[in-house]
Amino acid sequence: MSARVLVVDDVLPNVKLLEAKLTSEYFDVLCATSGEEALSIIARTPPDIILLDVMMPGMDGFEVCRRIKADPRSSHIPVIMVTALDHPRDRVTGLEAGADDFLTKPVHDVALFARVRSLVRLKMLTDELVMREVTSQSLGFRPDGPIMNAGEIEDAFILLVEDQERSANRLAEAMIPVGRVELDLTGESALERATAGGHDLVVISLGLAAVDGLRICSQLRSIEETRHVPILVIVDESNSRELMRGLEIGVNDYLVRPIDRNELVARVRTQVRRKRYAEQLRKTAHQNYRMATTDAVTGLYNRHFMTSHLETLLQNAEQSGRTLSVMMMDIDYFKRINDSYGHAAGDQVLRDFAQRISRNIRGIDLAARFGGEEFVVIMPETDTDFAVMVAERLRAAIEQEPFHINTTTSQAVTVSLGIACTAGHPASLESLIARADAALYQAKNEGRNRVVVARD
Amino acid sequence: MSARVLVVDDVLPNVKLLEAKLTSEYFDVLCATSGEEALSIIARTPPDIILLDVMMPGMDGFEVCRRIKADPRSSHIPVIMVTALDHPRDRVTGLEAGADDFLTKPVHDVALFARVRSLVRLKMLTDELVMREVTSQSLGFRPDGPIMNAGEIEDAFILLVEDQERSANRLAEAMIPVGRVELDLTGESALERATAGGHDLVVISLGLAAVDGLRICSQLRSIEETRHVPILVIVDESNSRELMRGLEIGVNDYLVRPIDRNELVARVRTQVRRKRYAEQLRKTAHQNYRMATTDAVTGLYNRHFMTSHLETLLQNAEQSGRTLSVMMMDIDYFKRINDSYGHAAGDQVLRDFAQRISRNIRGIDLAARFGGEEFVVIMPETDTDFAVMVAERLRAAIEQEPFHINTTTSQAVTVSLGIACTAGHPASLESLIARADAALYQAKNEGRNRVVVARD
Ligand SMILES: [Mg+2]
Ligand SMILES: [Mg+2]
Repeated sequence: MSARVLVVDDVLPNVKLLEAKLTSEYFDVLCATSGEEALSIIARTPPDIILLDVMMPGMDGFEVCRRIKADPRSSHIPVIMVTALDHPRDRVTGLEAGADDFLTKPVHDVALFARVRSLVRLKMLTDELVMREVTSQSLGFRPDGPIMNAGEIEDAFILLVEDQERSANRLAEAMIPVGRVELDLTGESALERATAGGHDLVVISLGLAAVDGLRICSQLRSIEETRHVPILVIVDESNSRELMRGLEIGVNDYLVRPIDRNELVARVRTQVRRKRYAEQLRKTAHQNYRMATTDAVTGLYNRHFMTSHLETLLQNAEQSGRTLSVMMMDIDYFKRINDSYGHAAGDQVLRDFAQRISRNIRGIDLAARFGGEEFVVIMPETDTDFAVMVAERLRAAIEQEPFHINTTTSQAVTVSLGIACTAGHPASLESLIARADAALYQAKNEGRNRVVVARD
Repeated sequence: MSARVLVVDDVLPNVKLLEAKLTSEYFDVLCATSGEEALSIIARTPPDIILLDVMMPGMDGFEVCRRIKADPRSSHIPVIMVTALDHPRDRVTGLEAGADDFLTKPVHDVALFARVRSLVRLKMLTDELVMREVTSQSLGFRPDGPIMNAGEIEDAFILLVEDQERSANRLAEAMIPVGRVELDLTGESALERATAGGHDLVVISLGLAAVDGLRICSQLRSIEETRHVPILVIVDESNSRELMRGLEIGVNDYLVRPIDRNELVARVRTQVRRKRYAEQLRKTAHQNYRMATTDAVTGLYNRHFMTSHLETLLQNAEQSGRTLSVMMMDIDYFKRINDSYGHAAGDQVLRDFAQRISRNIRGIDLAARFGGEEFVVIMPETDTDFAVMVAERLRAAIEQEPFHINTTTSQAVTVSLGIACTAGHPASLESLIARADAALYQAKNEGRNRVVVARD
């Protein structure tokens, strides 16, 4: 997958060298020779990944990275620090600033392309989620959207797969500050444990004797339940071919032995943070969907959903030649309940009313709150006679049992219902609703607490 | 990226051969030896891609493909037909059944892996969108969600980049049934045209003299505006290395010269259909967001959004040590408007009222409909004095100009306002709202049409 790469380095020949390498691999390259310039390019033309020099006059790479990660519009863009420094302490500083990985100068081509491609691929998987969030923000919505903040992670649940017992114990102990560690000492139960779920990260040694660690990684990526769990692999220095393979398969991060404890902790925290950020975005999207389609008071579908769904059902009914009925109802004298007992009691009656509707209709019927004290039930594949039967049953269920207002007070409630059926009529949404509404109006006029069928 | 591949072939050794090849590349492989078995596996364990034999006893590959593409739960899964047939007519039949590509038996490794990886990557880019849609459906929401149907595409807008004039004319003419074709005869303006927007597909010849076709592809993939536009490349038979490169970069489909017109049309239609499906999913997600956060009558934020946003603003205020004010207001005697003129007139007054609020607050303030005829304005970095000034201005703006009920009738309206400020108080959402509400209550009691500040 091609991508837009921003190269930042204060030494122009360094910039030009990386630009040439990346361009030859068909990446689209932007360049900056200072941190300030980089930040202004990012604000204008967000890249897919950033290669960031550490030692620069003025604002250094760590500070640039911190700013990128503090801004919700750029916090999801992966940053690779390019550095002559190669001490674990420097890497930990970079990781704590929010960096995703490091490349050591002079940059090795294979490592460069493998890491850029891998991080770009991972980014693109959540781009759809992030883009919607950012769009919402630019529309003025949701200025409080989640950002990938650098808060401490202390409650992670990590699956560690490592068959060298001493190394396993050392790794597990090092990760104590981050959270709870579950240990698989052979790799044979890794998949089963991971699918059982709840892990924030899987750490896998690629040197297992009993099973192929890369096979575990590929299976984790293929299975629905574990597709989104981050994977960090541990490799021997000699085994870069296996690491490249892992990155292709979809491994998120890696550590080369001998392992620095602080770097391990920093990398683990980065992965857990990213995972939780993506989860938060997914959850928001889901909640939005629920809120957009349901009525908050009763939990029934809302009017918008009902009309768009009815449109589809009417098309189906026309194609299949089967009739569809609509029942429209209005609670009698509902205003009196609100006036006598207050809005909270009124809402309680609406909820109770909605439950009685749900109990008296079939699984294929769809109940919605039309607004105020008005409700609609759509009944696919239903003729007038059957609809009247259901309506009468519902009317009786409302009348027969008073509604609880509070622990000591009950209130008798009745409902008026109007029914319209598509049989013999053009299946138009407006006309169907209008006919049901007219029948409901007639039911009200004839004394309420009754069912009226729309006349032709 | 690893993935789950379903291999379907009635000849077991064929299945085993593909399974071995794919497993060695760390794909997770499922196998089926008939169409029926394949469909039941897909329903149970949806794969990321399907390799489907054409000639099978019972249900043949075309029919299996049609069924996969007709089901909204599987229509987004790419299907590669594996076939000994190699006539354009057979490919067109496959494309019309919904197939994404073809591999000829015996299957060549490089082509197999390149095509599987490319289609899996493209699928994963929209998986987040599809997954949410399918989840919504399984929750009972949105049974009318979009599916990638096989309806005819006749109104596409296609950018064709080809510098061989005879070939360009032939291609353009062949695509007439699909829609409108814009022609770039050098490739030099391709990027500019594509970013100007509105294209459903870009068709690029990779043998351009003036520019590198692959470079155009990689730039299209890197630029925000064109990232989602499908790309179909046209290659010479001899140039499979360039094609592999294109697939890596993110090209969606290809045709090898000499080009069969019907196959061209079928492939173009498939790409346009996919693009429109993804667009539909994005649009739905966006609308959901809007609906979930705004009040349908006034267009202001809704109560849910207001409270979640206030929570965040209170945290910010606490951290920065700056005060925040809340203004709560209620239209006086609103019920009389509804009773005298009906609900439609009442809604019109609410809308007009909301507009007067918006005109009288600052850009950083947030106005929401709290419910019924109650509204809230959150004012960050604002003390009591300033809030009172804004409230008085708003009160006057409501009182001074009567509200239009219809073309001949106007109605004088007043509003009561309560103000609470965080200064000297714990910044809790509940207490702030409760204090503003108590002040509003007092304003009502003291005769309405006035501003009251919450006492400490
Ligand atoms: Mg430097
Ligand atoms: Mg066969």
